Amino acid sequence: MRVLLALGGNAMTALDGSARPEDQVAAARIAMASVADLVARDIEVVITHGNGPQVGNLLVKNELAAAVVPPVPLDWCGAQTQATLGNILMNALDDALARRQVVRPSAAVVTRTLVDATDAGFTSPTKPIGRYLPQDEARVLIDHGETWQDRGQKGWRRVVASPEPLEILDAPAVTALMEAGFVVIANGGGGIPTVRTDTGLTGVEAVIDKDLGAALLARTVAADVLVVATDVPNAVLRFGQPDAEPLGRIDVRRLRALAAEGHFASGSMGPKVDAACRFVEAGGQYAVISNLANILDAVAGDAGTVVVPNPLVEPGETTTERNPDA
Amino acid sequence: MRVLLALGGNAMTALDGSARPEDQVAAARIAMASVADLVARDIEVVITHGNGPQVGNLLVKNELAAAVVPPVPLDWCGAQTQATLGNILMNALDDALARRQVVRPSAAVVTRTLVDATDAGFTSPTKPIGRYLPQDEARVLIDHGETWQDRGQKGWRRVVASPEPLEILDAPAVTALMEAGFVVIANGGGGIPTVRTDTGLTGVEAVIDKDLGAALLARTVAADVLVVATDVPNAVLRFGQPDAEPLGRIDVRRLRALAAEGHFASGSMGPKVDAACRFVEAGGQYAVISNLANILDAVAGDAGTVVVPNPLVEPGETTTERNPDA
Repeated sequence: MRVLLALGGNAMTALDGSARPEDQVAAARIAMASVADLVARDIEVVITHGNGPQVGNLLVKNELAAAVVPPVPLDWCGAQTQATLGNILMNALDDALARRQVVRPSAAVVTRTLVDATDAGFTSPTKPIGRYLPQDEARVLIDHGETWQDRGQKGWRRVVASPEPLEILDAPAVTALMEAGFVVIANGGGGIPTVRTDTGLTGVEAVIDKDLGAALLARTVAADVLVVATDVPNAVLRFGQPDAEPLGRIDVRRLRALAAEGHFASGSMGPKVDAACRFVEAGGQYAVISNLANILDAVAGDAGTVVVPNPLVEPGETTTERNPDA
Repeated sequence: MRVLLALGGNAMTALDGSARPEDQVAAARIAMASVADLVARDIEVVITHGNGPQVGNLLVKNELAAAVVPPVPLDWCGAQTQATLGNILMNALDDALARRQVVRPSAAVVTRTLVDATDAGFTSPTKPIGRYLPQDEARVLIDHGETWQDRGQKGWRRVVASPEPLEILDAPAVTALMEAGFVVIANGGGGIPTVRTDTGLTGVEAVIDKDLGAALLARTVAADVLVVATDVPNAVLRFGQPDAEPLGRIDVRRLRALAAEGHFASGSMGPKVDAACRFVEAGGQYAVISNLANILDAVAGDAGTVVVPNPLVEPGETTTERNPDA
């Protein structure tokens, strides 16, 4: 069984959201204990991860040091987090496997993801990143070509393109390493956003949604199951309200309908639900949204919100959808 | 033929030493054109690279943003450069290969290198890194536990451990990818310095010499030839003097003797000569120190300083050294 596990960027921070290096290391150790439990059961695992808090820190550094060292573009910040998080995840996983006396090497690959230079996000950016600033400081950055939006009481925040991931350019390396027996860490932060121009491949300033990137990578490497790990055990209807209802096993059509009703917040549960649906719609066996505490059950489809294909035939209708019994 | 090509960190900067992102991209494109020429001739290439200017920039950012975001340790800075340089090298190489209509994928792996926690460098650091600061600013960092040295007119500079690389921990991933047909970029900056402790693997604040790391990686992946690319066509005796003498083909014993006479500056040509000698002493066919302009001839052993094994038997003596006819 081959599983693509997508970890939230906050799976690599402290509970209070702190992203000091030691917080990231400690959190990685907890997450990789769960992964080692899977690997110990001979499940093939590919790991991807978010990087929001980490990129946020890098952007602040860019800004505060700009007078002395040249700032690097946003896609470079994403690349940087692939290596720092890849590094600590490998250390944590190698240790967790050694403690279980499991011999399985890990590898972290720098991963580029192709996007379309004409993606609407580049003309109408919507993804908020980094810290809030007062209007006058935001103005300076707007004058430098960045897009910042007034977010009310908290201040102004930068928004960037979040283009659709089209192709995981470095998926062949992931596949080669998996086939050689490695637990592979790849496509962190959704991948380094890259466009193909007349003069060749080049990075672009954008942030790819890591869950949508995970869904694409999962299909590309022929994963059986996509697990989107988050900090809650289930996706929830009427989240936060007295009649909140956690979702268990659900088919894609019903979940898409609920999403269309606005149950899942954009920027948090929304893209996780979208990613799960995309994976199953594209032929994946099932996708699970859950937390790491239940990882073994989640991978088995016995915990969390388990998104399954549509039934072949529903009462009173016919359908050409594929059989969910996969 | 399998070649390990070690690029200087300055191979990814502008001629004036500028390391703006666009300078790094432009320089990578020039370097990867040379690599593509090798790949087009069916030579298997593994690329490693320095990262001095890039790490220098990251340290300044750490410092100037320290009041707002937590600084990351030096080993994380090294990791970051593996991803940013890996990314631009892959883009440049993919483009250069496409222009030559050569189908060969590239991959960049996050690479850890094992060092000894008791390496003398940790108690007596010697490797200068980052920018010069006035004494009062250096004092603040010394109070934070860093080691800084008075370097005279230019000011104070931080020195860190440069421990001996013992094992390329992620060499198995490099080998797996090579065997699957990839041009692999690995062990940038000499690798992420990592120690094995009672509690597991952990990064340490240090800088591994990238040429010594390259020599070890070259042997580990069974490269036939190590090419240490630099900005001069040869290693030179009496460098900069009127009777300067570029070295051509030379055996290890003779080169070691010249090194012992102090011909090669520590921190520049010294470690390149050491790396070349180590590779050949450990059984490599030959090592070449040259610039990228002559890459095809250099790889063939027809340009640059070509370090070969000692002759099996020299006049008037016997030796147990291996035959150099490789």
